[in-house]
Amino acid sequence: MQENKIIKLTVRDVRFPTSLEQHGSDAMHTDPDYSVAYVVLETDSDAALKGYGLTFTVGRGTEIVVCAVKALSTLVVGKTLKEIVSDFRGFYRLLSSDGQMRWVGPEKGVIQLATAAILNAVWDLWARVEGKPLWKLLVDMDPAKLISCIDFRYITDALTEQEALDILVKAKKGQKNREEQMLKEGYPAYTTSCAWLGYTDQQLTQLCSEALAQGWTKFKVKVGADLQDDIRRCSLIRKLIGPNNTLMIDANQRWDVNEAITWVTKLAEFHPLWIEEPTCPDDVLGHASISKALAPLGIGVATGEQVRLYIKHANAQHCIIRGPNALCLTICTG
Amino acid sequence: MQENKIIKLTVRDVRFPTSLEQHGSDAMHTDPDYSVAYVVLETDSDAALKGYGLTFTVGRGTEIVVCAVKALSTLVVGKTLKEIVSDFRGFYRLLSSDGQMRWVGPEKGVIQLATAAILNAVWDLWARVEGKPLWKLLVDMDPAKLISCIDFRYITDALTEQEALDILVKAKKGQKNREEQMLKEGYPAYTTSCAWLGYTDQQLTQLCSEALAQGWTKFKVKVGADLQDDIRRCSLIRKLIGPNNTLMIDANQRWDVNEAITWVTKLAEFHPLWIEEPTCPDDVLGHASISKALAPLGIGVATGEQVRLYIKHANAQHCIIRGPNALCLTICTG
Repeated sequence: MQENKIIKLTVRDVRFPTSLEQHGSDAMHTDPDYSVAYVVLETDSDAALKGYGLTFTVGRGTEIVVCAVKALSTLVVGKTLKEIVSDFRGFYRLLSSDGQMRWVGPEKGVIQLATAAILNAVWDLWARVEGKPLWKLLVDMDPAKLISCIDFRYITDALTEQEALDILVKAKKGQKNREEQMLKEGYPAYTTSCAWLGYTDQQLTQLCSEALAQGWTKFKVKVGADLQDDIRRCSLIRKLIGPNNTLMIDANQRWDVNEAITWVTKLAEFHPLWIEEPTCPDDVLGHASISKALAPLGIGVATGEQVRLYIKHANAQHCIIRGPNALCLTICTG
Repeated sequence: MQENKIIKLTVRDVRFPTSLEQHGSDAMHTDPDYSVAYVVLETDSDAALKGYGLTFTVGRGTEIVVCAVKALSTLVVGKTLKEIVSDFRGFYRLLSSDGQMRWVGPEKGVIQLATAAILNAVWDLWARVEGKPLWKLLVDMDPAKLISCIDFRYITDALTEQEALDILVKAKKGQKNREEQMLKEGYPAYTTSCAWLGYTDQQLTQLCSEALAQGWTKFKVKVGADLQDDIRRCSLIRKLIGPNNTLMIDANQRWDVNEAITWVTKLAEFHPLWIEEPTCPDDVLGHASISKALAPLGIGVATGEQVRLYIKHANAQHCIIRGPNALCLTICTG
């Protein structure tokens, strides 16, 4: 690998006026402008390779993340890709443990979103240098190398490095077949675009019908503002998609613990696969209580764009851990 | 009360080069420049009253908090103090639940520090309007009014509003005596200024002797970087202050759970009152495990400058809940 020294980091505040038509709206974010802090890493490589990374925001406040990326950039510019990827875990710790900046985190909120945008750009740069899409870089990587990129601080009570490595080594079996299948058939995904909270029933019907015609089989519906609305909308979508397609619901942190259990119980007849972010995202035990209460109804609990402590405490067999804003590995232990 | 309309908010990035002489140094913040984002609220009152508030930072990253205060200022400027204090809980929720900005929190990290600086300035303004120091404003306030200023979302599982109110009403008894005693004798405090991690044994001896001569009886020592150093320093301080004065230790989030228990056990002979921030500040259950393990040694666990979820889950009888950066009420239930 060339050294690929990072000689410049630029960051842009890019906003999209999605709130104008209520795209992206949910029970907690009623007028979101889906936006990004967008990072570009420039290198001194012969091919002038660049790495592109972003972190997702919903409008106001993106300028704060941009400010945080600029503050972190001094820890990045001047380093070579080679030295970063030779100790990716150390690089993560450098960004997240700066003796002064960690005070405004640590590893949470604005500074973590900024860290994520930079890390995503580094991963992208690495994949470009290897001439592969990122997923291919990851699946081709030696399991021990991949594990060495992850920070295991604070999660080792639930999953040791060795256990994580064993899981990855075991997963090597059948990998080739899975890759071929994915390249042929595409990869499983669900759509959230049919049922934002601010959409009318008419829009919902039209978008859902179009998505069905395009081959979608999994549909997520925003809930949590008004129970009667939720019942009407879930009923409508379940009728449209039929009993065999999958429905998920997402409350975007709207409820307290008991409220979540009561509310979701009243939506159980529509057989949602999971309720996503039912309550305060920091309340690990609250999520576990909700999971336990809803398990007999066959409804799971999904967390939002955060992962770390859930692995440790939240009875992983009850919680579906979803992708964080930062690229990280999710290893399900339950 | 006059309306006292807030017509301007200014915020300054104020830094102090404390790292030059290792003032403030600890196991995680080895070169802190103790600094602040400093907020001033200007009003249209006849007396041109202003409110002053700050949030504590340790150098780099303060500019991000300043940026966040500016982002929040649109929610503050134009409001009157009267309308804010008539629904202080609503004002907190307005600042912490803005449909776009909550995404970069919620209620954590940079945006929470920024919120704290603004809230502190509002409390200060309120006290100035009433012509009292803030503590006097609080103790004179009707308990029901005081409770109405607090946001009970997410903590009601552990403490209902009514229970909190009962505690405050009960505390009214003996208040007058306590006030008189405090005005006469001062209020209890401890000093952290004698034993920052970067200080030499000579500095430590000198500062500790001076503090003793000034009448200090409680001393906090930074620990967590090197066990042998900690043993030497704690031994030295315990000898200096004698068996009857109080020693506390503070690891500033340095350890994992098991490491914390092992390490502190080896310092038990110096009889610390508590170990502060032994591990990751988000790991509520980890703190509870440490508390439980250290209780037989007579050592408590103190959290850092955060409070909310600890009230809910962390077995309050084990945890000493300390003051957060934002002014809030700490009601010990255990």
